[in-house]
Amino acid sequence: MEQRFVTLTTDFGTSDHYVGTIKGVVYSINPSARVVDISHDVQSYNLLDGALILAQAYSHFPPETVHMVVVDPGVGSARRPILARTGKYFFVAPDNGVLSLALAREQRVSVRHITAENYFLHPVSRTFHGRDIFAAVAGWLSTGLESSDFGQEISDYARFSIPSPKAIGQGRIQGEVLKVDKFGNVVTNITPHNVPQLFAAQAPEFKIVIGKREITRVRNSYAEGATDEVFAILGSMGFLEISTNRGSAARVLEAGRGAEILVSGKW
Amino acid sequence: MEQRFVTLTTDFGTSDHYVGTIKGVVYSINPSARVVDISHDVQSYNLLDGALILAQAYSHFPPETVHMVVVDPGVGSARRPILARTGKYFFVAPDNGVLSLALAREQRVSVRHITAENYFLHPVSRTFHGRDIFAAVAGWLSTGLESSDFGQEISDYARFSIPSPKAIGQGRIQGEVLKVDKFGNVVTNITPHNVPQLFAAQAPEFKIVIGKREITRVRNSYAEGATDEVFAILGSMGFLEISTNRGSAARVLEAGRGAEILVSGKW
Amino acid sequence: MEQRFVTLTTDFGTSDHYVGTIKGVVYSINPSARVVDISHDVQSYNLLDGALILAQAYSHFPPETVHMVVVDPGVGSARRPILARTGKYFFVAPDNGVLSLALAREQRVSVRHITAENYFLHPVSRTFHGRDIFAAVAGWLSTGLESSDFGQEISDYARFSIPSPKAIGQGRIQGEVLKVDKFGNVVTNITPHNVPQLFAAQAPEFKIVIGKREITRVRNSYAEGATDEVFAILGSMGFLEISTNRGSAARVLEAGRGAEILVSGKW
Repeated sequence: MEQRFVTLTTDFGTSDHYVGTIKGVVYSINPSARVVDISHDVQSYNLLDGALILAQAYSHFPPETVHMVVVDPGVGSARRPILARTGKYFFVAPDNGVLSLALAREQRVSVRHITAENYFLHPVSRTFHGRDIFAAVAGWLSTGLESSDFGQEISDYARFSIPSPKAIGQGRIQGEVLKVDKFGNVVTNITPHNVPQLFAAQAPEFKIVIGKREITRVRNSYAEGATDEVFAILGSMGFLEISTNRGSAARVLEAGRGAEILVSGKW
Repeated sequence: MEQRFVTLTTDFGTSDHYVGTIKGVVYSINPSARVVDISHDVQSYNLLDGALILAQAYSHFPPETVHMVVVDPGVGSARRPILARTGKYFFVAPDNGVLSLALAREQRVSVRHITAENYFLHPVSRTFHGRDIFAAVAGWLSTGLESSDFGQEISDYARFSIPSPKAIGQGRIQGEVLKVDKFGNVVTNITPHNVPQLFAAQAPEFKIVIGKREITRVRNSYAEGATDEVFAILGSMGFLEISTNRGSAARVLEAGRGAEILVSGKW
Repeated sequence: MEQRFVTLTTDFGTSDHYVGTIKGVVYSINPSARVVDISHDVQSYNLLDGALILAQAYSHFPPETVHMVVVDPGVGSARRPILARTGKYFFVAPDNGVLSLALAREQRVSVRHITAENYFLHPVSRTFHGRDIFAAVAGWLSTGLESSDFGQEISDYARFSIPSPKAIGQGRIQGEVLKVDKFGNVVTNITPHNVPQLFAAQAPEFKIVIGKREITRVRNSYAEGATDEVFAILGSMGFLEISTNRGSAARVLEAGRGAEILVSGKW
C-alpha cells in the first residue's frame, strides 16, 4: 500500500464523533495512509473561511497528498461531490467552491464529478457525506488509484474569488475583513498588489480607518508595536492585517468578518 | 513491533498537557503504534457523552484497534480499570459504563479487570490514571499482547443504556435530548424503531413539541429546509434530530441536553 | 530516512491554517517524520503556560524526539531562534524562556543559536517563524542531522523559573495560582517540598485561604470529595491543587491565574 498523506479540513469541530469517524474510514480502507488534521474549526458552513485555511496550508504538503475538505451545507442535496487533480495534489470536496482559492494557485487542474459509488460507504446517508463519500474516496485515492477511476471530467464546477477591494477615488481604496485569526489579528482582503505604497521601504503618509480607529503606522513585526498601539502589518497570508502587540486588534477595533476598511494616502 | 491503531476518546480538553502526555506514554512503549484522536472534548465527567461519541466512531477503525476511553470522574477511587476484548477490537477504560454503548453492538465480548501492575507507570498517581494505567496498558496492547496478560475476566462490570423514549398514550411518545452537536443539531433518543411512521415515505400528519416550537415537517437533508425553518431529520447517528438549515436548532429552540421532546401523530 | 518524533506545542489555536501549515512543512522535509500534537491551546503569548505544558509532557516521549515549541510574541524581532540538545531530546523554540522548565529537568544541556539559514523556508517572513524557521529546522532535525549543523553554542539564552512561594511567618506560606486546567482544577506553585506536612500520612490541622474560601481538608482523589466540597489535593503535575469533585473549583473560588493562596498550619 502507498503512504499518501490525507489532510482534513472541515467545520466538524472536535466535540462530536465526526472527525474520529472520518479517520477510521480512511484507515480502514488504507491502514498505511497518513492522516493529518489541517483544521476542524472552520466556521460552520463558511465556505470562504474553509477556502482560506486550505489555500494557506495545502501547498506545504508533500506531492501526491490528498486534501479532503468538508464544509458542506448542501450535504444530501443535488450538489455534486468532486475530485480535483492538479500537477501536484488531489482534492476531494463538495462542489460548492470551497476549493476555489487553492485551485486558483495550481497548475494543470482537472476536476471530476465523483460518481463511482462502488467506492462509497453504503447505505449513503443524506447528512454525513464526509463519512460515506469524501472519507471513503480519500481513503481509496490514498492507495494510489487514478482520479479517472472516480468519474467524468467536468468544467462547470463552482468557483468564487476573494472579494476584491475597490478603488473609490484618487488614493482611496475600500476593502473588507476576511477573517479574524486566533490572536485577534484582523485579516483584510487588501494585498501589496492593491496598495504597493503602503509596504514600500519608505511608506508615504497614509490613513487607515477601520472600526473605531484610525491607523497611521505600518510595522514589520508584531513586537515593534508599542503597548496598545494598533498598527498595519503585512501578514503571513499575504494580506494587509491590522494588529496589536500581544493583544487582540479585533477586540480593540470591534471589527469582525465583513467589516469595512478604508485606506487613503498621498499617492 | 506491530502497528495496531490506538484511538483516544477523553474529556481532557486540549489546553493542558494531558493529551500530549498520554501520546508520549503510548509511543514510548510502542514507537510503531498509530495513535488517532477521536475526541478530547467529551463534556467533562459526562459518561453518556463519551459513550455516544465512542459508539459512533469506533466501528469504522481497522480490526485489532485498541480504543482507549478516559472519562473518569472516579479516578483514584476503588473503581476498576477494565479491558474489553470483542471479536474485532480492544477497549481500555475505567469501569463506569463509558464502554456500554459500544460493547452493546459488539460480538463475543469478554471483559477483564486490569490488575497487571507491571504494565503500569510507577508510581501510579491518584489523579491521572489516563497516563499511569490506561495509556500504558493501551501501549502494551498495541504491541500485540493478549488481553489475558492483563487480568482476570469479570462479569459485573458497569453498564448503562441510552434512556428509552416512553409511549404515553395512543400515538404519543416522549423522549429527551441526548446531546447537541457542534452545528446545533439537537440529537434525541428517538429512533425509527420507536416511531417508524415518522420516517415512512409518506409520513402521516404529526406534531413534535420541543422547547419553544412545534415541528410538523420531516426533511431528508439539511439543505431542504427553508430559511429559519426548524424541522425533523433522521441524523447520521440513527436518531431523530431537530435541525435548521445553516443554523443552530438548539439556539432557536432553547433546548439542550435533557430537554423533553414530545412526538404525536395520527397513527 | 529516520522516523524521529516531532512534537508541537504552540499557542496557534486550531481555527486557522497555522498548525496545518507547520505539519506540512515538517512532512515535506521528512515524509517519515511522526508529528504529534502536545497542545496548540497554550494561552496566547503566555510563556509560563507553554513552559508548564511542555515540562509535563515532553519526558514521556521516546528518546531523540524533537520537541518544537512556538509561543513567540517576539517573532520578527531580534530574539533568536534556539536549538537545545540534551542527553535525551532536541528542543526547537524562540529564545524567550519557554524551554526553561523542561531544560531545568534535563541532563547535559547544550543550547545553540540557530543561524543556518540554508535550512529555513525562504523568504523568511517577519510574522510566522513557526513555519519558516522552527518547523523547517524541526523537519531537518528529524531526518537525523546533528545539532551542530544549525549554529554555534550559546550560554546566555533566556531562562525563568516558576515563581516560588514565600514563607511569611511561622507555619505560613504564600503562593499563587499557576494555571486553571480544563476541569477547573486550580494549580498552585506550592509543592510537597514547600509544605511536606500538608501531604503527610497524618496531616496536622491547617487552613488554606484562596479566593472566597477556606479549605481545611486534603483529599487523595477527586472522588473522595463530598458534593460541593472544595479541597486540597496533590495533583499529577506535582503541585498543590485546589479541586472539587465533578465540578470547577476555579468557578467556585472565583480564582484564576495569578490569584494568591495562603497556607497556614500548626507546624
